[in-house]
Amino acid sequence: MIIGKTIEEINVGDKDFTEKTITETDVYLYAGITGDFNPAHINQAYAEGTMFKGRIAHGMLTAGLISQVLGMKLPGPGTIYLSQELKFQRPVRIGDTIHAEVEVEEVIKEKNRVVLKTTCKNQNDEVVLDGKAVVLAPKN
Amino acid sequence: MIIGKTIEEINVGDKDFTEKTITETDVYLYAGITGDFNPAHINQAYAEGTMFKGRIAHGMLTAGLISQVLGMKLPGPGTIYLSQELKFQRPVRIGDTIHAEVEVEEVIKEKNRVVLKTTCKNQNDEVVLDGKAVVLAPKN
Amino acid sequence: MIIGKTIEEINVGDKDFTEKTITETDVYLYAGITGDFNPAHINQAYAEGTMFKGRIAHGMLTAGLISQVLGMKLPGPGTIYLSQELKFQRPVRIGDTIHAEVEVEEVIKEKNRVVLKTTCKNQNDEVVLDGKAVVLAPKN
Amino acid sequence: MIIGKTIEEINVGDKDFTEKTITETDVYLYAGITGDFNPAHINQAYAEGTMFKGRIAHGMLTAGLISQVLGMKLPGPGTIYLSQELKFQRPVRIGDTIHAEVEVEEVIKEKNRVVLKTTCKNQNDEVVLDGKAVVLAPKN
Repeated sequence: MIIGKTIEEINVGDKDFTEKTITETDVYLYAGITGDFNPAHINQAYAEGTMFKGRIAHGMLTAGLISQVLGMKLPGPGTIYLSQELKFQRPVRIGDTIHAEVEVEEVIKEKNRVVLKTTCKNQNDEVVLDGKAVVLAPKN
Repeated sequence: MIIGKTIEEINVGDKDFTEKTITETDVYLYAGITGDFNPAHINQAYAEGTMFKGRIAHGMLTAGLISQVLGMKLPGPGTIYLSQELKFQRPVRIGDTIHAEVEVEEVIKEKNRVVLKTTCKNQNDEVVLDGKAVVLAPKN
Repeated sequence: MIIGKTIEEINVGDKDFTEKTITETDVYLYAGITGDFNPAHINQAYAEGTMFKGRIAHGMLTAGLISQVLGMKLPGPGTIYLSQELKFQRPVRIGDTIHAEVEVEEVIKEKNRVVLKTTCKNQNDEVVLDGKAVVLAPKN
Repeated sequence: MIIGKTIEEINVGDKDFTEKTITETDVYLYAGITGDFNPAHINQAYAEGTMFKGRIAHGMLTAGLISQVLGMKLPGPGTIYLSQELKFQRPVRIGDTIHAEVEVEEVIKEKNRVVLKTTCKNQNDEVVLDGKAVVLAPKN
Protein backbone atom coordinates (compact mmCIF):
# COMPACT_ATOMS: atom_id res chain seq x y z
CA MET A 1 0.00 0.00 0.00
CA ILE A 2 1.33 3.36 -1.03
CA ILE A 3 0.91 5.80 1.82
CA GLY A 4 1.84 9.39 2.46
CA LYS A 5 2.61 11.02 5.82
CA THR A 6 0.23 10.24 8.67
CA ILE A 7 -0.84 12.95 11.11
CA GLU A 8 1.91 11.88 13.53
CA GLU A 9 4.55 12.53 10.88
CA ILE A 10 3.37 16.04 10.00
CA ASN A 11 4.56 19.16 11.80
CA VAL A 12 3.75 22.86 11.53
CA GLY A 13 6.28 24.43 9.19
CA ASP A 14 6.78 21.38 6.98
CA LYS A 15 7.01 22.36 3.32
CA ASP A 16 7.11 20.77 -0.09
CA PHE A 17 6.75 21.95 -3.64
CA THR A 18 6.66 21.19 -7.37
CA GLU A 19 7.66 23.26 -10.39
CA LYS A 20 6.52 23.31 -14.00
CA THR A 21 6.84 25.55 -17.01
CA ILE A 22 3.31 26.07 -18.31
CA THR A 23 3.19 25.58 -22.06
CA GLU A 24 0.71 26.22 -24.82
CA THR A 25 0.13 22.46 -24.86
CA ASP A 26 -0.88 22.51 -21.19
CA VAL A 27 -3.31 25.35 -21.76
CA TYR A 28 -4.83 23.74 -24.84
CA LEU A 29 -5.24 20.32 -23.27
CA TYR A 30 -6.71 21.90 -20.17
CA ALA A 31 -9.17 23.89 -22.31
CA GLY A 32 -10.08 20.64 -23.99
CA ILE A 33 -10.79 18.80 -20.76
CA THR A 34 -12.82 21.52 -19.08
CA GLY A 35 -14.38 23.05 -22.17
CA ASP A 36 -13.06 26.40 -21.00
CA PHE A 37 -12.56 28.08 -24.38
CA ASN A 38 -12.60 31.55 -22.85
CA PRO A 39 -10.80 33.56 -25.57
CA ALA A 40 -8.30 34.84 -22.99
CA HIS A 41 -6.85 31.33 -23.08
CA ILE A 42 -7.21 30.09 -26.65
CA ASN A 43 -7.60 33.12 -28.94
CA GLN A 44 -4.34 34.93 -29.54
CA ALA A 45 -5.89 37.65 -31.76
CA TYR A 46 -8.37 38.50 -28.99
CA ALA A 47 -5.87 38.14 -26.17
CA GLU A 48 -3.48 40.64 -27.70
CA GLY A 49 -6.17 43.27 -27.22
CA THR A 50 -6.59 42.53 -23.51
CA MET A 51 -4.66 44.05 -20.60
CA PHE A 52 -2.56 40.86 -20.54
CA LYS A 53 -1.36 41.35 -24.18
CA GLY A 54 -1.54 37.64 -24.98
CA ARG A 55 -3.03 34.32 -23.97
CA ILE A 56 -2.88 33.38 -20.28
CA ALA A 57 -3.25 30.04 -18.53
CA HIS A 58 -6.47 29.09 -16.76
CA GLY A 59 -6.11 29.99 -13.07
CA MET A 60 -7.51 26.63 -12.11
CA LEU A 61 -4.77 24.91 -14.12
CA THR A 62 -2.16 26.52 -11.88
CA ALA A 63 -4.20 25.43 -8.88
CA GLY A 64 -3.79 21.84 -10.07
CA LEU A 65 -0.12 22.06 -9.16
CA ILE A 66 -1.05 22.64 -5.51
CA SER A 67 -3.25 19.60 -5.60
CA GLN A 68 -0.32 17.64 -6.99
CA VAL A 69 1.91 18.53 -4.03
CA LEU A 70 -0.82 17.70 -1.52
CA GLY A 71 -1.68 14.39 -3.11
CA MET A 72 1.81 13.19 -3.93
CA LYS A 73 4.16 14.75 -1.37
CA LEU A 74 2.72 16.48 1.65
CA PRO A 75 0.81 14.68 3.08
CA GLY A 76 0.91 12.45 -0.07
CA PRO A 77 -1.06 9.34 -1.15
CA GLY A 78 -4.12 8.68 0.97
CA THR A 79 -4.76 12.39 1.57
CA ILE A 80 -8.41 13.44 1.35
CA TYR A 81 -8.95 16.95 0.06
CA LEU A 82 -11.56 18.79 2.13
CA SER A 83 -11.34 22.36 0.94
CA GLN A 84 -9.24 24.92 -0.88
CA GLU A 85 -9.30 28.70 -0.96
CA LEU A 86 -7.67 30.30 -3.99
CA LYS A 87 -6.77 33.92 -4.61
CA PHE A 88 -5.71 34.63 -8.18
CA GLN A 89 -3.12 37.39 -7.77
CA ARG A 90 -1.46 37.65 -11.17
CA PRO A 91 -1.91 36.10 -14.62
CA VAL A 92 0.23 33.12 -15.64
CA ARG A 93 1.49 33.53 -19.18
CA ILE A 94 2.38 30.70 -21.55
CA GLY A 95 6.05 30.00 -20.83
CA ASP A 96 5.97 30.99 -17.16
CA THR A 97 7.60 28.58 -14.73
CA ILE A 98 5.45 28.03 -11.67
CA HIS A 99 6.74 27.03 -8.26
CA ALA A 100 3.82 25.62 -6.25
CA GLU A 101 4.47 25.27 -2.54
CA VAL A 102 2.48 24.02 0.44
CA GLU A 103 3.40 24.72 4.04
CA VAL A 104 1.76 23.17 7.10
CA GLU A 105 0.09 25.86 9.17
CA GLU A 106 -1.89 23.80 11.62
CA VAL A 107 -2.13 20.16 12.65
CA ILE A 108 -5.41 19.13 14.30
CA LYS A 109 -4.54 15.65 15.57
CA GLU A 110 -7.91 14.69 17.07
CA LYS A 111 -9.61 15.36 13.71
CA ASN A 112 -6.71 13.99 11.61
CA ARG A 113 -6.85 17.34 9.86
CA VAL A 114 -4.05 19.47 8.38
CA VAL A 115 -4.30 23.11 7.29
CA LEU A 116 -1.73 24.26 4.76
CA LYS A 117 -0.78 27.59 3.24
CA THR A 118 -0.63 27.15 -0.54
CA THR A 119 1.36 29.52 -2.75
CA CYS A 120 2.26 29.58 -6.45
CA LYS A 121 4.99 31.92 -7.67
CA ASN A 122 6.35 32.55 -11.14
CA GLN A 123 10.01 32.63 -12.25
CA ASN A 124 10.26 36.24 -11.05
CA ASP A 125 9.25 35.21 -7.55
CA GLU A 126 5.92 36.98 -7.90
CA VAL A 127 2.92 35.36 -6.23
CA VAL A 128 0.42 34.37 -8.90
CA LEU A 129 -1.92 32.39 -6.68
CA ASP A 130 -2.23 31.81 -2.95
CA GLY A 131 -4.67 30.46 -0.42
CA LYS A 132 -5.24 27.71 2.05
CA ALA A 133 -5.97 23.99 1.89
CA VAL A 134 -7.58 21.72 4.46
CA VAL A 135 -7.00 17.97 4.14
CA LEU A 136 -7.40 14.72 6.05
CA ALA A 137 -4.03 13.05 6.51
CA PRO A 138 -3.54 9.49 5.20
CA LYS A 139 -4.24 6.66 7.65
CA ASN A 140 -2.54 3.30 7.87
CA MET B 1 -14.35 42.24 -29.47
CA ILE B 2 -15.93 39.30 -27.73
CA ILE B 3 -17.47 40.38 -24.43
CA GLY B 4 -19.50 38.71 -21.71
CA LYS B 5 -22.05 40.37 -19.44
CA THR B 6 -21.12 43.70 -17.93
CA ILE B 7 -21.97 44.55 -14.32
CA GLU B 8 -25.13 46.35 -15.50
CA GLU B 9 -26.40 43.19 -17.14
CA ILE B 10 -25.90 40.95 -14.10
CA ASN B 11 -28.53 40.45 -11.43
CA VAL B 12 -28.73 38.55 -8.18
CA GLY B 13 -30.23 35.15 -8.92
CA ASP B 14 -28.85 34.84 -12.48
CA LYS B 15 -27.70 31.28 -13.14
CA ASP B 16 -25.84 29.32 -15.78
CA PHE B 17 -24.28 25.88 -16.02
CA THR B 18 -22.38 23.30 -18.02
CA GLU B 19 -22.45 19.50 -17.96
CA LYS B 20 -19.90 16.82 -18.77
CA THR B 21 -19.44 13.12 -18.20
CA ILE B 22 -15.99 12.75 -16.66
CA THR B 23 -14.07 9.97 -18.37
CA GLU B 24 -10.84 8.08 -17.81
CA THR B 25 -9.41 10.16 -20.66
CA ASP B 26 -10.14 13.38 -18.77
CA VAL B 27 -8.53 12.08 -15.61
CA TYR B 28 -5.44 10.83 -17.40
CA LEU B 29 -4.88 13.98 -19.43
CA TYR B 30 -5.43 16.07 -16.33
CA ALA B 31 -2.91 13.95 -14.44
CA GLY B 32 -0.47 14.52 -17.28
CA ILE B 33 -0.90 18.30 -17.26
CA THR B 34 -0.66 18.79 -13.52
CA GLY B 35 1.66 15.90 -12.70
CA ASP B 36 -0.87 14.81 -10.08
CA PHE B 37 -0.23 11.08 -10.23
CA ASN B 38 -1.77 10.47 -6.83
CA PRO B 39 -2.59 6.75 -7.05
CA ALA B 40 -6.21 7.49 -6.11
CA HIS B 41 -6.56 8.90 -9.63
CA ILE B 42 -4.37 6.77 -11.86
CA ASN B 43 -3.68 3.46 -10.07
CA GLN B 44 -6.66 1.13 -10.29
CA ALA B 45 -5.03 -1.64 -8.23
CA TYR B 46 -4.35 0.80 -5.42
CA ALA B 47 -7.68 2.58 -5.75
CA GLU B 48 -9.68 -0.60 -5.35
CA GLY B 49 -8.25 -0.87 -1.85
CA THR B 50 -9.40 2.63 -0.83
CA MET B 51 -12.72 3.66 0.66
CA PHE B 52 -13.73 4.82 -2.84
CA LYS B 53 -13.28 1.29 -4.34
CA GLY B 54 -11.87 2.65 -7.60
CA ARG B 55 -10.16 5.60 -9.23
CA ILE B 56 -11.70 9.01 -8.69
CA ALA B 57 -11.29 12.27 -10.60
CA HIS B 58 -9.07 15.04 -9.27
CA GLY B 59 -11.23 17.47 -7.29
CA MET B 60 -9.58 20.36 -9.08
CA LEU B 61 -10.58 18.89 -12.45
CA THR B 62 -14.23 19.18 -11.44
CA ALA B 63 -13.52 22.74 -10.30
CA GLY B 64 -12.40 23.53 -13.84
CA LEU B 65 -16.00 23.19 -14.99
CA ILE B 66 -16.98 26.07 -12.69
CA SER B 67 -14.25 28.16 -14.22
CA GLN B 68 -15.64 27.31 -17.67
CA VAL B 69 -19.09 28.66 -16.80
CA LEU B 70 -17.63 31.83 -15.27
CA GLY B 71 -15.33 32.51 -18.21
CA MET B 72 -17.64 31.57 -21.03
CA LYS B 73 -21.19 32.19 -19.86
CA LEU B 74 -21.76 34.11 -16.64
CA PRO B 75 -20.25 36.69 -16.68
CA GLY B 76 -18.39 35.33 -19.77
CA PRO B 77 -15.40 36.58 -21.82
CA GLY B 78 -13.54 39.43 -20.18
CA THR B 79 -14.23 38.14 -16.65
CA ILE B 80 -11.28 38.39 -14.26
CA TYR B 81 -11.19 35.66 -11.65
CA LEU B 82 -10.32 37.04 -8.21
CA SER B 83 -10.92 34.15 -5.86
CA GLN B 84 -12.58 30.79 -5.39
CA GLU B 85 -13.48 28.76 -2.32
CA LEU B 86 -13.95 25.06 -2.91
CA LYS B 87 -15.40 22.41 -0.60
CA PHE B 88 -14.93 18.89 -1.85
CA GLN B 89 -18.05 17.11 -0.60
CA ARG B 90 -18.04 13.79 -2.42
CA PRO B 91 -15.74 11.93 -4.79
CA VAL B 92 -16.36 12.08 -8.53
CA ARG B 93 -15.98 8.65 -10.09
CA ILE B 94 -14.99 7.96 -13.67
CA GLY B 95 -18.25 7.94 -15.60
CA ASP B 96 -20.07 10.45 -13.39
CA THR B 97 -21.89 13.25 -15.20
CA ILE B 98 -21.22 16.58 -13.53
CA HIS B 99 -23.59 19.54 -13.61
CA ALA B 100 -21.59 22.67 -12.71
CA GLU B 101 -23.70 25.69 -11.87
CA VAL B 102 -22.98 29.26 -10.87
CA GLU B 103 -25.56 31.59 -9.35
CA VAL B 104 -25.11 35.30 -8.70
CA GLU B 105 -25.29 36.01 -4.98
CA GLU B 106 -24.15 39.60 -4.84
CA VAL B 107 -23.44 42.40 -7.32
CA ILE B 108 -21.10 45.13 -6.04
CA LYS B 109 -21.48 47.76 -8.77
CA GLU B 110 -19.00 50.34 -7.48
CA LYS B 111 -16.23 47.73 -7.44
CA ASN B 112 -17.42 45.96 -10.66
CA ARG B 113 -17.41 42.84 -8.55
CA VAL B 114 -19.71 39.80 -8.62
CA VAL B 115 -19.99 37.08 -5.96
CA LEU B 116 -21.35 33.74 -7.15
CA LYS B 117 -22.37 30.52 -5.45
CA THR B 118 -20.72 27.65 -7.30
CA THR B 119 -22.06 24.12 -7.10
CA CYS B 120 -21.22 20.85 -8.84
CA LYS B 121 -23.63 17.94 -8.63
CA ASN B 122 -23.45 14.42 -10.04
CA GLN B 123 -26.13 12.56 -12.02
CA ASN B 124 -27.82 11.58 -8.73
CA ASP B 125 -28.21 15.23 -7.80
CA GLU B 126 -25.66 14.88 -4.99
CA VAL B 127 -23.41 17.86 -4.36
CA VAL B 128 -19.81 16.84 -5.05
CA LEU B 129 -18.26 20.29 -4.79
CA ASP B 130 -19.48 23.69 -3.71
CA GLY B 131 -18.14 27.06 -2.75
CA LYS B 132 -18.04 30.68 -3.80
CA ALA B 133 -16.36 32.67 -6.57
CA VAL B 134 -15.54 36.37 -6.72
CA VAL B 135 -14.91 37.90 -10.15
CA LEU B 136 -14.58 41.25 -11.86
CA ALA B 137 -17.23 41.61 -14.57
CA PRO B 138 -16.13 42.28 -18.17
CA LYS B 139 -15.86 45.94 -19.21
CA ASN B 140 -16.52 47.46 -22.61
CA MET C 1 -33.23 18.59 -20.87
CA ILE C 2 -30.71 20.81 -22.61
CA ILE C 3 -32.16 22.14 -25.85
CA GLY C 4 -31.03 24.54 -28.56
CA LYS C 5 -33.23 26.70 -30.77
CA THR C 6 -36.32 25.08 -32.24
CA ILE C 7 -37.39 25.80 -35.83
CA GLU C 8 -39.80 28.49 -34.56
CA GLU C 9 -36.95 30.38 -32.94
CA ILE C 10 -34.70 30.42 -36.01
CA ASN C 11 -34.84 33.14 -38.63
CA VAL C 12 -33.06 33.79 -41.91
CA GLY C 13 -30.06 35.99 -41.20
CA ASP C 14 -29.42 34.65 -37.66
CA LYS C 15 -25.69 34.27 -37.07
CA ASP C 16 -23.31 32.84 -34.49
CA PHE C 17 -19.62 32.05 -34.31
CA THR C 18 -16.65 30.71 -32.39
CA GLU C 19 -12.95 31.61 -32.50
CA LYS C 20 -9.78 29.69 -31.77
CA THR C 21 -6.08 30.06 -32.40
CA ILE C 22 -5.00 26.77 -34.01
CA THR C 23 -1.83 25.49 -32.37
CA GLU C 24 0.69 22.74 -33.02
CA THR C 25 -0.98 20.86 -30.16
CA ASP C 26 -4.31 20.91 -31.99
CA VAL C 27 -2.74 19.66 -35.21
CA TYR C 28 -0.83 16.88 -33.48
CA LEU C 29 -3.75 15.65 -31.41
CA TYR C 30 -5.97 15.77 -34.48
CA ALA C 31 -3.38 13.79 -36.44
CA GLY C 32 -3.38 11.25 -33.63
CA ILE C 33 -7.15 10.86 -33.59
CA THR C 34 -7.63 10.56 -37.34
CA GLY C 35 -4.32 8.93 -38.23
CA ASP C 36 -3.85 11.68 -40.83
CA PHE C 37 -0.06 11.85 -40.73
CA ASN C 38 0.15 13.54 -44.12
CA PRO C 39 3.61 15.14 -43.94
CA ALA C 40 2.07 18.53 -44.82
CA HIS C 41 0.68 18.51 -41.27
CA ILE C 42 3.28 16.81 -39.10
CA ASN C 43 6.61 16.89 -40.94
CA GLN C 44 8.24 20.29 -40.69
CA ALA C 45 11.29 19.34 -42.81
CA TYR C 46 9.00 18.18 -45.62
CA ALA C 47 6.54 21.03 -45.21
CA GLU C 48 9.22 23.70 -45.61
CA GLY C 49 9.73 22.39 -49.15
CA THR C 50 6.04 22.77 -50.08
CA MET C 51 4.29 25.82 -51.51
CA PHE C 52 3.01 26.51 -47.97
CA LYS C 53 6.56 26.80 -46.53
CA GLY C 54 5.61 25.07 -43.28
CA ARG C 55 3.12 22.75 -41.64
CA ILE C 56 -0.55 23.51 -42.11
CA ALA C 57 -3.61 22.39 -40.16
CA HIS C 58 -5.86 19.65 -41.49
CA GLY C 59 -8.74 21.26 -43.39
CA MET C 60 -11.16 18.98 -41.61
CA LEU C 61 -9.89 20.23 -38.24
CA THR C 62 -11.00 23.74 -39.17
CA ALA C 63 -14.32 22.30 -40.28
CA GLY C 64 -14.79 20.99 -36.75
CA LEU C 65 -15.23 24.56 -35.54
CA ILE C 66 -18.29 24.92 -37.78
CA SER C 67 -19.72 21.79 -36.27
CA GLN C 68 -19.11 23.27 -32.81
CA VAL C 69 -21.20 26.36 -33.59
CA LEU C 70 -24.02 24.29 -35.10
CA GLY C 71 -24.12 21.84 -32.21
CA MET C 72 -23.66 24.25 -29.35
CA LYS C 73 -25.06 27.61 -30.43
CA LEU C 74 -27.10 27.78 -33.63
CA PRO C 75 -29.29 25.76 -33.58
CA GLY C 76 -27.51 24.19 -30.53
CA PRO C 77 -28.05 20.98 -28.54
CA GLY C 78 -30.46 18.58 -30.17
CA THR C 79 -29.43 19.59 -33.72
CA ILE C 80 -29.06 16.68 -36.17
CA TYR C 81 -26.41 17.23 -38.82
CA LEU C 82 -27.65 16.13 -42.24
CA SER C 83 -24.98 17.37 -44.62
CA GLN C 84 -22.06 19.72 -45.09
CA GLU C 85 -20.34 21.08 -48.17
CA LEU C 86 -16.80 22.33 -47.64
CA LYS C 87 -14.57 24.35 -49.96
CA PHE C 88 -11.02 24.63 -48.75
CA GLN C 89 -9.97 28.09 -49.97
CA ARG C 90 -6.69 28.77 -48.20
CA PRO C 91 -4.34 26.88 -45.90
CA VAL C 92 -4.56 27.40 -42.14
CA ARG C 93 -1.10 27.75 -40.62
CA ILE C 94 -0.16 26.87 -37.07
CA GLY C 95 -0.81 30.05 -35.09
CA ASP C 96 -3.68 31.31 -37.23
CA THR C 97 -6.79 32.45 -35.34
CA ILE C 98 -9.93 31.11 -36.99
CA HIS C 99 -13.32 32.77 -36.83
CA ALA C 100 -15.95 30.16 -37.72
CA GLU C 101 -19.38 31.57 -38.49
CA VAL C 102 -22.72 30.13 -39.44
CA GLU C 103 -25.58 32.16 -40.91
CA VAL C 104 -29.11 30.93 -41.50
CA GLU C 105 -29.91 31.03 -45.22
CA GLU C 106 -33.16 29.15 -45.34
CA VAL C 107 -35.70 27.83 -42.82
CA ILE C 108 -37.90 24.97 -44.11
CA LYS C 109 -40.49 24.74 -41.34
CA GLU C 110 -42.51 21.78 -42.65
CA LYS C 111 -39.36 19.64 -42.76
CA ASN C 112 -37.85 21.13 -39.54
CA ARG C 113 -34.81 21.82 -41.70
CA VAL C 114 -32.35 24.71 -41.62
CA VAL C 115 -29.80 25.59 -44.32
CA LEU C 116 -26.81 27.63 -43.14
CA LYS C 117 -23.92 29.33 -44.87
CA THR C 118 -20.73 28.30 -43.08
CA THR C 119 -17.57 30.38 -43.31
CA CYS C 120 -14.18 30.25 -41.63
CA LYS C 121 -11.84 33.24 -41.84
CA ASN C 122 -8.36 33.80 -40.48
CA GLN C 123 -7.09 36.77 -38.47
CA ASN C 124 -6.55 38.71 -41.73
CA ASP C 125 -10.22 38.32 -42.61
CA GLU C 126 -9.36 35.94 -45.46
CA VAL C 127 -11.79 33.09 -46.11
CA VAL C 128 -10.02 29.79 -45.49
CA LEU C 129 -13.05 27.54 -45.74
CA ASP C 130 -16.65 28.02 -46.77
CA GLY C 131 -19.69 25.99 -47.69
CA LYS C 132 -23.15 25.09 -46.59
CA ALA C 133 -24.69 22.99 -43.83
CA VAL C 134 -28.13 21.39 -43.65
CA VAL C 135 -29.43 20.40 -40.22
CA LEU C 136 -32.60 19.33 -38.46
CA ALA C 137 -33.48 21.79 -35.69
CA PRO C 138 -33.85 20.51 -32.11
CA LYS C 139 -37.34 19.46 -31.03
CA ASN C 140 -38.91 19.73 -27.60
CA MET D 1 10.67 14.18 -51.14
CA ILE D 2 7.67 12.15 -50.08
CA ILE D 3 5.17 12.07 -52.90
CA GLY D 4 1.84 10.38 -53.50
CA LYS D 5 0.35 9.34 -56.85
CA THR D 6 0.55 11.86 -59.68
CA ILE D 7 -2.36 12.35 -62.05
CA GLU D 8 -0.75 9.91 -64.53
CA GLU D 9 -0.78 7.16 -61.93
CA ILE D 10 -4.44 7.56 -60.98
CA ASN D 11 -7.28 5.74 -62.76
CA VAL D 12 -11.03 5.72 -62.45
CA GLY D 13 -12.01 2.88 -60.11
CA ASP D 14 -8.87 3.04 -57.95
CA LYS D 15 -9.74 2.54 -54.30
CA ASP D 16 -8.11 2.75 -50.90
CA PHE D 17 -9.28 2.80 -47.30
CA THR D 18 -8.50 2.99 -43.62
CA GLU D 19 -10.26 1.54 -40.58
CA LYS D 20 -10.49 2.58 -36.95
CA THR D 21 -12.55 1.72 -33.91
CA ILE D 22 -13.80 5.04 -32.53
CA THR D 23 -13.29 5.20 -28.78
CA GLU D 24 -14.40 7.45 -25.97
CA THR D 25 -10.86 8.82 -25.97
CA ASP D 26 -11.18 9.85 -29.62
CA VAL D 27 -14.48 11.60 -28.96
CA TYR D 28 -13.17 13.39 -25.88
CA LEU D 29 -9.95 14.55 -27.47
CA TYR D 30 -11.86 15.70 -30.54
CA ALA D 31 -14.30 17.62 -28.32
CA GLY D 32 -11.29 19.21 -26.65
CA ILE D 33 -9.71 20.33 -29.91
CA THR D 34 -12.83 21.74 -31.50
CA GLY D 35 -14.61 22.92 -28.37
CA ASP D 36 -17.61 20.91 -29.51
CA PHE D 37 -19.09 20.00 -26.12
CA ASN D 38 -22.51 19.32 -27.61
CA PRO D 39 -24.03 17.09 -24.89
CA ALA D 40 -24.79 14.41 -27.50
CA HIS D 41 -21.05 13.74 -27.49
CA ILE D 42 -19.86 14.30 -23.92
CA ASN D 43 -22.85 14.02 -21.59
CA GLN D 44 -23.91 10.43 -21.01
CA ALA D 45 -26.84 11.33 -18.73
CA TYR D 46 -28.26 13.60 -21.45
CA ALA D 47 -27.42 11.28 -24.32
CA GLU D 48 -29.33 8.38 -22.80
CA GLY D 49 -32.47 10.46 -23.20
CA THR D 50 -31.93 11.07 -26.91
CA MET D 51 -33.05 8.90 -29.85
CA PHE D 52 -29.47 7.54 -29.97
CA LYS D 53 -29.62 6.21 -26.35
CA GLY D 54 -26.02 7.16 -25.62
CA ARG D 55 -23.12 9.36 -26.65
CA ILE D 56 -22.25 9.47 -30.34
CA ALA D 57 -19.10 10.58 -32.13
CA HIS D 58 -18.90 13.97 -33.85
CA GLY D 59 -19.76 13.46 -37.54
CA MET D 60 -16.79 15.57 -38.52
CA LEU D 61 -14.49 13.25 -36.58
CA THR D 62 -15.53 10.38 -38.85
CA ALA D 63 -14.95 12.65 -41.85
CA GLY D 64 -11.35 13.01 -40.71
CA LEU D 65 -10.77 9.39 -41.67
CA ILE D 66 -11.61 10.22 -45.30
CA SER D 67 -9.12 13.03 -45.22
CA GLN D 68 -6.54 10.56 -43.90
CA VAL D 69 -6.97 8.24 -46.88
CA LEU D 70 -6.80 11.12 -49.37
CA GLY D 71 -3.71 12.66 -47.81
CA MET D 72 -1.79 9.50 -47.05
CA LYS D 73 -2.84 6.91 -49.63
CA LEU D 74 -4.90 7.98 -52.61
CA PRO D 75 -3.58 10.25 -54.03
CA GLY D 76 -1.31 10.59 -50.93
CA PRO D 77 1.30 13.18 -49.84
CA GLY D 78 1.23 16.34 -51.92
CA THR D 79 -2.53 16.18 -52.46
CA ILE D 80 -4.32 19.49 -52.16
CA TYR D 81 -7.86 19.22 -50.83
CA LEU D 82 -10.24 21.43 -52.80
CA SER D 83 -13.66 20.41 -51.58
CA GLN D 84 -15.68 17.79 -49.77
CA GLU D 85 -19.38 17.03 -49.62
CA LEU D 86 -20.54 15.07 -46.60
CA LYS D 87 -23.87 13.38 -45.94
CA PHE D 88 -24.28 12.15 -42.39
CA GLN D 89 -26.43 9.04 -42.81
CA ARG D 90 -26.26 7.32 -39.42
CA PRO D 91 -24.79 8.04 -36.00
CA VAL D 92 -21.40 6.58 -35.06
CA ARG D 93 -21.45 5.21 -31.53
CA ILE D 94 -18.48 4.90 -29.22
CA GLY D 95 -17.00 1.48 -30.02
CA ASP D 96 -18.06 1.40 -33.68
CA THR D 97 -15.38 0.37 -36.16
CA ILE D 98 -15.37 2.64 -39.18
CA HIS D 99 -14.17 1.63 -42.65
CA ALA D 100 -13.46 4.83 -44.61
CA GLU D 101 -13.03 4.33 -48.34
CA VAL D 102 -12.29 6.58 -51.30
CA GLU D 103 -12.81 5.57 -54.92
CA VAL D 104 -11.71 7.53 -57.97
CA GLU D 105 -14.73 8.61 -59.98
CA GLU D 106 -13.18 11.03 -62.44
CA VAL D 107 -9.69 12.07 -63.50
CA ILE D 108 -9.42 15.51 -65.11
CA LYS D 109 -5.85 15.43 -66.43
CA GLU D 110 -5.69 18.98 -67.87
CA LYS D 111 -6.66 20.43 -64.50
CA ASN D 112 -4.66 17.86 -62.45
CA ARG D 113 -7.93 17.23 -60.66
CA VAL D 114 -9.38 14.04 -59.20
CA VAL D 115 -12.97 13.47 -58.07
CA LEU D 116 -13.51 10.68 -55.55
CA LYS D 117 -16.52 9.01 -54.00
CA THR D 118 -16.01 8.90 -50.24
CA THR D 119 -17.85 6.43 -48.02
CA CYS D 120 -17.66 5.49 -44.34
CA LYS D 121 -19.32 2.31 -43.13
CA ASN D 122 -19.61 0.78 -39.68
CA GLN D 123 -18.88 -2.82 -38.64
CA ASN D 124 -22.38 -3.83 -39.79
CA ASP D 125 -21.64 -2.57 -43.29
CA GLU D 126 -24.09 0.30 -42.85
CA VAL D 127 -23.17 3.60 -44.49
CA VAL D 128 -22.70 6.22 -41.79
CA LEU D 129 -21.29 8.97 -44.00
CA ASP D 130 -20.86 9.45 -47.72
CA GLY D 131 -20.11 12.15 -50.23
CA LYS D 132 -17.58 13.33 -52.75
CA ALA D 133 -14.09 14.83 -52.61
CA VAL D 134 -12.27 16.93 -55.19
CA VAL D 135 -8.48 17.17 -54.92
CA LEU D 136 -5.45 18.29 -56.88
CA ALA D 137 -3.07 15.37 -57.41
CA PRO D 138 0.52 15.65 -56.15
CA LYS D 139 3.11 16.99 -58.60
CA ASN D 140 6.75 16.08 -58.88
